[in-house]
Amino acid sequence: MANPTAAMLVIGDEILSGRTRDSNTNFLAGELTRHGIRLMEARVVSDEMEAIIAAVRALSTRFDHVFTSGGIGPTHDDITADAIAAAFETPITHRADAMALLQAHYDRSGMEFNAARQRMARIPDGAILIDNPISTAPGFCIGNVHVMAGVPRVFEAMVASVLPTLTGGDPLLSQSLRVDRGEGDVATPFAALAAEFPDLTMGSYPFNQNGAFGTNLVVRGTDPARIDAAMVRLAGLFA
Amino acid sequence: MANPTAAMLVIGDEILSGRTRDSNTNFLAGELTRHGIRLMEARVVSDEMEAIIAAVRALSTRFDHVFTSGGIGPTHDDITADAIAAAFETPITHRADAMALLQAHYDRSGMEFNAARQRMARIPDGAILIDNPISTAPGFCIGNVHVMAGVPRVFEAMVASVLPTLTGGDPLLSQSLRVDRGEGDVATPFAALAAEFPDLTMGSYPFNQNGAFGTNLVVRGTDPARIDAAMVRLAGLFA
Repeated sequence: MANPTAAMLVIGDEILSGRTRDSNTNFLAGELTRHGIRLMEARVVSDEMEAIIAAVRALSTRFDHVFTSGGIGPTHDDITADAIAAAFETPITHRADAMALLQAHYDRSGMEFNAARQRMARIPDGAILIDNPISTAPGFCIGNVHVMAGVPRVFEAMVASVLPTLTGGDPLLSQSLRVDRGEGDVATPFAALAAEFPDLTMGSYPFNQNGAFGTNLVVRGTDPARIDAAMVRLAGLFA
Repeated sequence: MANPTAAMLVIGDEILSGRTRDSNTNFLAGELTRHGIRLMEARVVSDEMEAIIAAVRALSTRFDHVFTSGGIGPTHDDITADAIAAAFETPITHRADAMALLQAHYDRSGMEFNAARQRMARIPDGAILIDNPISTAPGFCIGNVHVMAGVPRVFEAMVASVLPTLTGGDPLLSQSLRVDRGEGDVATPFAALAAEFPDLTMGSYPFNQNGAFGTNLVVRGTDPARIDAAMVRLAGLFA
């Protein structure tokens, strides 16, 4: 069975300005790999309506799932929910169940449930809420798009809520061999081995440590026996 | 004068599998911001010809500059140069000046300049080489696309070579104010202030530290006097 595919869409000027380093893509990549969903593309776009709409449409058409992070808070630059509604041409309203969750949360904490915070209950029609055990304001799934918060702790909790509801595939496994030679020395035999195992993906990743070049050779696939067989051959070639 | 725009394209299965964390986007974002070039989008795609070609075409059409990282080494999974040539419908050959650079490098180091390493001299016709002071194998610029290595030290050195050759704009400046209140408490006055300064961009970034929520309010623009004026108003509202 082919593995389902996915894309990540990070929404946020703060990543593109260099002020903040995105960690959500790397977290999601690891979780999807374990769940047998193949992350095919990741994008970062700015907090602009047209940029978000275009990316959501392009990615949700091409891949089985799209995961977004960022832009669902209470401030004027949080426009993700409206952009998703526009991308799906669906109405968006302050939804009663989301309002009730947030009302209860702010009642408990003694903070005012003001108009800005009520914006976080704006959910496109037909969406399913994603639980937020950290700060209550929900994410949501609509079609094949899963809309989550940008704050890493909240994003990670939302991924943990969503992922078990998705059909995965065989876990995407990998093994690697580190060799103290440059890529140029291993390239030809490594390519020949890759051609012998067309069901596996083989990649080489050079590194430089204390002035010496080396290479990590990585073998990926879903069949552990095939990966083992390739690793035995790799060790024979380069160990 | 409007600032030039740019996109980053990271090529590499190792980022999408979660094995490696991309640091080149964050580095480039900071450098572009200082140089007055606005990073509008970043993408990560897999080591697949069609994915790279489609992304290069889409991004080079939409933005003034595209910077790529990864996939220019000697191994079979290094297909970036061929993909760029295909995207521009231009021939690609082992170019004499790149061959000479590499031949001299491997002669000095006593390593064999074998067929795999010669692949790194494959450069699309009409491209300009980018100097690689770390490991010699050059990057290249073709049209508005700047093709660079994935290894961070080499990527960073290549950015340092390329950036001074590009016309920048006024540096993109920012100042921020950290407030110990949740986003929901600052959202309404912050949005009103943003509306008063339409020439600036204002963003709010929530954080959670030791269980307490707070918000970083960031003001961005190119006119330092206007940013100062906005920061005085911000401090008056929230300090």
